[in-house]
Amino acid sequence: MREVAIIGIGQTPVDEHWDKSLKELAGEAILAALSDARRDSADALFIGNMLSGMLSKQENLGVLISDWIGLTGMEAEKVEAACGSGAAAFRAGLMAVSSEEVDSALVVGVEKMTESLPIETTEALATAADADYESAQGLSFVAINALVMQLYLHTYGWKHTDFAPFSINAHANALHNPYARLHEAITEKDYVNARMVAEPINLLDASPTGDGAAAVLLVPADSVLAQDRRIIKIIGSAAATDSIAIHSRKDPLWLSAAEKSARKAYDQAGVRPEDVDFFELHDAFSIMSVLSLEACGFAERGKGPRLGLEGDILINGRIPITTRGGLKARGHPVGATGMYQIVEAVQQLRGEAAPTQVENSRIGLTQNIGGSGATIITHILTSN
Amino acid sequence: MREVAIIGIGQTPVDEHWDKSLKELAGEAILAALSDARRDSADALFIGNMLSGMLSKQENLGVLISDWIGLTGMEAEKVEAACGSGAAAFRAGLMAVSSEEVDSALVVGVEKMTESLPIETTEALATAADADYESAQGLSFVAINALVMQLYLHTYGWKHTDFAPFSINAHANALHNPYARLHEAITEKDYVNARMVAEPINLLDASPTGDGAAAVLLVPADSVLAQDRRIIKIIGSAAATDSIAIHSRKDPLWLSAAEKSARKAYDQAGVRPEDVDFFELHDAFSIMSVLSLEACGFAERGKGPRLGLEGDILINGRIPITTRGGLKARGHPVGATGMYQIVEAVQQLRGEAAPTQVENSRIGLTQNIGGSGATIITHILTSN
Repeated sequence: MREVAIIGIGQTPVDEHWDKSLKELAGEAILAALSDARRDSADALFIGNMLSGMLSKQENLGVLISDWIGLTGMEAEKVEAACGSGAAAFRAGLMAVSSEEVDSALVVGVEKMTESLPIETTEALATAADADYESAQGLSFVAINALVMQLYLHTYGWKHTDFAPFSINAHANALHNPYARLHEAITEKDYVNARMVAEPINLLDASPTGDGAAAVLLVPADSVLAQDRRIIKIIGSAAATDSIAIHSRKDPLWLSAAEKSARKAYDQAGVRPEDVDFFELHDAFSIMSVLSLEACGFAERGKGPRLGLEGDILINGRIPITTRGGLKARGHPVGATGMYQIVEAVQQLRGEAAPTQVENSRIGLTQNIGGSGATIITHILTSN
Repeated sequence: MREVAIIGIGQTPVDEHWDKSLKELAGEAILAALSDARRDSADALFIGNMLSGMLSKQENLGVLISDWIGLTGMEAEKVEAACGSGAAAFRAGLMAVSSEEVDSALVVGVEKMTESLPIETTEALATAADADYESAQGLSFVAINALVMQLYLHTYGWKHTDFAPFSINAHANALHNPYARLHEAITEKDYVNARMVAEPINLLDASPTGDGAAAVLLVPADSVLAQDRRIIKIIGSAAATDSIAIHSRKDPLWLSAAEKSARKAYDQAGVRPEDVDFFELHDAFSIMSVLSLEACGFAERGKGPRLGLEGDILINGRIPITTRGGLKARGHPVGATGMYQIVEAVQQLRGEAAPTQVENSRIGLTQNIGGSGATIITHILTSN
């Protein structure tokens, strides 16, 4: 197995892109990644996307996009793992290069969500849950997360306000990210007064949807000559699953797939949680930040909110998270999110993330989740 | 890169499975493949599927199915390349094992098509074409293929009847395949009199849809001890694309992605077309058999129909095709089809395909197509 490096990144802003179709968004991110890498083509293209068939009446995205970017002929396919599609496609690209089946691979996460009616988008997102036992009961995605958050508050005795620091931190970091959807600082008062969505989850616990695309170019690490910019290598990659439905889990407050995939990735990379310089986690809802931090070894079970309250998650804290705004404020174009996390981790590791640059950052952790903790994919990246 | 072997196969009949959901079909094929391999688990699961989001309101199939088969926790994801999803998932599984990221991988192709209204299915299938420039004009999938067949007849001067041998052969072979959807021999008279679908394509030029699943278990070839049954190795694997829309091609009668992926696979395997003992090709419509045979080096351009008329495609012919019924008569549950082809090739190479066994077959070619020649994935398998 050969080592793989990221030599180019590209992204579009997360926004309501009324003037751009799905393939145009993907193309913009891919061409930016190629240009960043100073290359003009690649052997293969892997696309992370969840909703195109349902919302854009378009599947076969591989060839749609390879054709659009002018690289007709290349190998191309779509990978889907609900909101974890981005990282799943990244892992597919990684395996393609490390297996020597291809010598270079583009990976793009892309989603177009805001052109549909909200009810259509909500219904399409619900396909990430168990259609027979969850969605059929009228459980939307936010409703499932609300049940989990309710149980967490009840079990461990935290108050809803204790989750405010996660959203405040995400919004603060997004202020400095030109690609973020929301550029608005929020206070604890804003958080407390935000409109309720599904109790106890209010609007400031939840990430906004959006249209967007983020891309990278992968090549064998040993093929890259020393350059002015540091080469970013992937030193850990693992995926794991849990039950699809929350009700099948012995402990609905423990993300076993996060723990399992993180542990595998740590082992591969030879690092421990304390070696991680920042963590781009999947904060689709504030409760998910807490559960992710606990499952990946940064907080004891039931004590995750402390990391927010004590400032550990800030840029200069013990374990900075959502350094470019996270899902909460950069936005959550579902199938693209995992690739935004990777692109943002590369920015940090290259030292291109000012003024939310984590100083001396050498090891970055990213984690992308599909469904309610059902499919979880973890990556560890490092700079030379 | 390590060599990969198939050590277990499983499939369900292609049929209208009113009593079985998508996950139950997938589970049946997977458990049969595990049982055939005398194993009880695997590291990862790759799922080929096109339509589940649109027709079953269910995405996140990876975790849905890993959970259902009792292997909760394993890595799992879906791969989509329209009707080429099955082979795309197979190639993903192959890369996962050959990259050493996993030591064993299940691959299943699964589709559930017959529970929806025909208009819903037709609309969902049209997402394989270019939504903006083909589907938006009212072009269904059969209509696109009808334009291609019309052009072929016009350009090369063949008659519609000259295509009859492909359908007759497929139906004859399916008679002996218990997993085939259609068990009905047809004559040239039946072919000529069949109901018109989209001129010149009639009902006996077109493959039937269906529900079904087919699965394999992949492991490193060097991990398998000599057994009573022959080990089947993958010696060639390649994917390529063309433009997504037919109208963008200089020559709409040439499957450049078939030629490109076949040539790569031949090179990898070190074989030539004349070394191939049988060819499981993608006969979604009879015209596709002809174009595939030409692009893969079995007939000169414009002369494909000869192979049917001269008996070359029969079980004892020069290049037997669709030996278990092909898409035409085994049926075409779209995202599952590529995996049916692989499973059938393994049956042939193991010598388990009587009475349509190709004698002394050692090298099998499979080719799966997504869209109208847009995404094409070719594999070459061999027995020891």
